[in-house]
Amino acid sequence: MDPLFVETGLFLCLEGGEGAGKSTQAALLVDWLESLGHPVLLTREPGGTEVGKILRGIVLSNDTGELSPRTEALIYAADKAEHVDRVVLPALDDGSIVLTDRYVDSTLAYQGAGREIGIAELEAVARWATSDLRPNLTIVLDVDPAVGLARFEGADRIEAEPLEFHQRVRQHFLDLAAVDPAHYLVLDASRPAEDIHRDVRAAVEPWLTQVGAR
Amino acid sequence: MDPLFVETGLFLCLEGGEGAGKSTQAALLVDWLESLGHPVLLTREPGGTEVGKILRGIVLSNDTGELSPRTEALIYAADKAEHVDRVVLPALDDGSIVLTDRYVDSTLAYQGAGREIGIAELEAVARWATSDLRPNLTIVLDVDPAVGLARFEGADRIEAEPLEFHQRVRQHFLDLAAVDPAHYLVLDASRPAEDIHRDVRAAVEPWLTQVGAR
Repeated sequence: MDPLFVETGLFLCLEGGEGAGKSTQAALLVDWLESLGHPVLLTREPGGTEVGKILRGIVLSNDTGELSPRTEALIYAADKAEHVDRVVLPALDDGSIVLTDRYVDSTLAYQGAGREIGIAELEAVARWATSDLRPNLTIVLDVDPAVGLARFEGADRIEAEPLEFHQRVRQHFLDLAAVDPAHYLVLDASRPAEDIHRDVRAAVEPWLTQVGAR
Repeated sequence: MDPLFVETGLFLCLEGGEGAGKSTQAALLVDWLESLGHPVLLTREPGGTEVGKILRGIVLSNDTGELSPRTEALIYAADKAEHVDRVVLPALDDGSIVLTDRYVDSTLAYQGAGREIGIAELEAVARWATSDLRPNLTIVLDVDPAVGLARFEGADRIEAEPLEFHQRVRQHFLDLAAVDPAHYLVLDASRPAEDIHRDVRAAVEPWLTQVGAR
């Protein structure tokens, strides 16, 4: 299966650890794109579909006992399959800009960081689930996990992992970005939100030719 | 990944279409094995674990809209991963006989019969989910779908498929059995339950050496 980058519509992704400010940057980016007249769909993984919300509830709930690592990988993959087929691809086909809060890289970073199943197998399942559709641009909001996690109260099952886990996650995002600089932007997310947003705009702007002038 | 057939404990599977009498034969087989003094675990796919029950609910509910074929495959695979890792393998490790009502072949038959995704891909995901653990003996209860379906009222999402779908499912079970006669037994399930059970006993008996004399 070959990586698929759409050439009509525009597929953008925000990645990063807990507390990196993805929600804030997503809202600022959507506002700006809409102010330019573009149709924008903001979505997320896991939980971007009705079925995905149920799946997300299983994986993130503290009530769920310890899942087999392959179970967790497959539940995330099922969420992705539904999300890509029912939400992302139809919107791209319509020429929209799709911005997703987390995507395949989160699966690779969070589950790969667990190191309980092979990263190659994990990636094969996630790529199959998504027909290997890849974001045109992934923006990694990079922050020291000790800083990011301190922004949270009431941890879910993932956030409750030890700090070393989150440090491996952070490094994994950076490694993925380093391999494919044409489709990644890494930003220091410890800065003020407006500064980060300015850099996001600068990186997204060249891609807007794919969705035409408005 | 190589197929894994356990050599301590015994892994048995009942397969077949709707209304083939799997539940009846499972109960008769468990009673007989227990009367011989063997520890037996009767389980099922989908839904053999707590998480699996939630996943089963998603796939079989009429409230669920049409799922992407890959979503459905991955949800079934997640159910399998949890079932094998948390239920089947631990019981086999304890030397028990595990009898499962449906397993990988049901996924291949039901989803492969849909022909919406490649059977090779479908099989790769299901094999990965189960670490390619295979039943020592799979008993296929074979019945004309027109007969089997007539035994049901109130169809779920799968049972509500057209007759041709169920005919393809039936053929798929027969094809799987034909390829590996050492690990399959096909029985005419239109006969009285006691006659079928007698054949089941005869086929299972030689395998009991794996779980020792009691």
